[in-house]
Amino acid sequence: MTNEKGSGFEASRREVLIGTGKLAAGAAIVGVGASALINKTANASSGPPPTPWGYVKLDPKEIAQSAYDNWYKHYCCYAVAEAIIAPLREKIGGPYQNLPVEAFIFGHGGTVGFGTLCGTLMGAGVATSFALGKKDGEAVLRDMMAYYSEADMPIFKPNNPKAHVKNTNISESPLCHISVGKWMKKEGVALKSPERKDRCARVAADIAYQTVVLMNKVHDKTYVGETGSPSAEYGITTQENCTECHGDDVPEPLAPKA
Amino acid sequence: MTNEKGSGFEASRREVLIGTGKLAAGAAIVGVGASALINKTANASSGPPPTPWGYVKLDPKEIAQSAYDNWYKHYCCYAVAEAIIAPLREKIGGPYQNLPVEAFIFGHGGTVGFGTLCGTLMGAGVATSFALGKKDGEAVLRDMMAYYSEADMPIFKPNNPKAHVKNTNISESPLCHISVGKWMKKEGVALKSPERKDRCARVAADIAYQTVVLMNKVHDKTYVGETGSPSAEYGITTQENCTECHGDDVPEPLAPKA
Repeated sequence: MTNEKGSGFEASRREVLIGTGKLAAGAAIVGVGASALINKTANASSGPPPTPWGYVKLDPKEIAQSAYDNWYKHYCCYAVAEAIIAPLREKIGGPYQNLPVEAFIFGHGGTVGFGTLCGTLMGAGVATSFALGKKDGEAVLRDMMAYYSEADMPIFKPNNPKAHVKNTNISESPLCHISVGKWMKKEGVALKSPERKDRCARVAADIAYQTVVLMNKVHDKTYVGETGSPSAEYGITTQENCTECHGDDVPEPLAPKA
Repeated sequence: MTNEKGSGFEASRREVLIGTGKLAAGAAIVGVGASALINKTANASSGPPPTPWGYVKLDPKEIAQSAYDNWYKHYCCYAVAEAIIAPLREKIGGPYQNLPVEAFIFGHGGTVGFGTLCGTLMGAGVATSFALGKKDGEAVLRDMMAYYSEADMPIFKPNNPKAHVKNTNISESPLCHISVGKWMKKEGVALKSPERKDRCARVAADIAYQTVVLMNKVHDKTYVGETGSPSAEYGITTQENCTECHGDDVPEPLAPKA
């Protein structure tokens, strides 16, 4: 614990004294005496810095390459989240300096290997939520859930590919298991193959790219979300590939009681 | 942006001067002069405070009631994450003071309503990852993914229930759509019904409860993870309810190339 707390202390001190560009002001705060300091810190009990933490326009191509490279460090969820958050940490600083994106590695393989939500989408959710806040963040994420399901991926061509990938695939689902499973079948390779790993690294690049395209539009105030709430439309939280599991026997949602 | 940065600044200052319980030491740091401060802050460029941020034992019953109450604020993912992180923010402080759990609301409804990973499990993942770090956090989360799929929920009885819930259900899946869909069918209620909402609030309580039970064992060094990596076992990232979608025609995973 000592080291971890120490690191938090260092980062916070940096924010107070350097990150805000106010070393002199920091010294002045101390100069006003302990009672004023305690009054100031009492305000801090209102809680952690609220989102949105802010966004500056990023280059989708650069972020895509970064996500590809990141995949080989800590897999899909980290790959996308860190690709977008790292430049914001550098360009905006502030609260971003206190968020270790390694904490989101657990999204890998559809959450610790269970094949549910593709980790690239959890990573996109983390980035959009912190940077854009709830309303715009969720609108972009809904569009990304739809994009992931409909896009013929991977699209991205890495600068230095670690493996040759022959096939692209439309998953028709935001689920890791379905997306990876369909692609593995088409490519004829196993989960542990270099090709499958590179395919997932490229998908991370694709999702980071498109997320940044949409976030840039939010920044420019030209963004219009295209994907509504599935639960409002279908009467259940859902993907939009009903027949894939239900066949022709898609259940009718119950109407709310009058 | 000004306000958000301001909040980060307040929290950080609290951490430096009060949160660590070292007001006098804080003053002493400033006393050593600007050049020493700059040297200290240079170390901060190593990045955000790494996880694990630490854990103190919590009362599962209290955390469960808190998760139930939280559900009615911001739904499932926030409910579990905040129920566990809020007391750590209070009891440990430090980096927890800089993490706004509202940023994880997006996990609701299986991620913005798409019915994928149940938001309670994303919330558990956030809490276990920040508090316990990658190794123990992922081990507990794997157990929770399995627990969620196997438990007959809801179990929790709220102090002041907002609706009457008749049925319990075993989801056999960590997916929101399947878990909620099976329960709705059994209960005979719609997604927007008070009963369905209260069922999900109670499931949030159940997942928070069991997550804290396991985290307490990690704290006491008595925890033994019971759930392996599905991808290692099955050759694909997956749940363990193969036949539910595949029927009798469960694909054989391809072997890695020799």
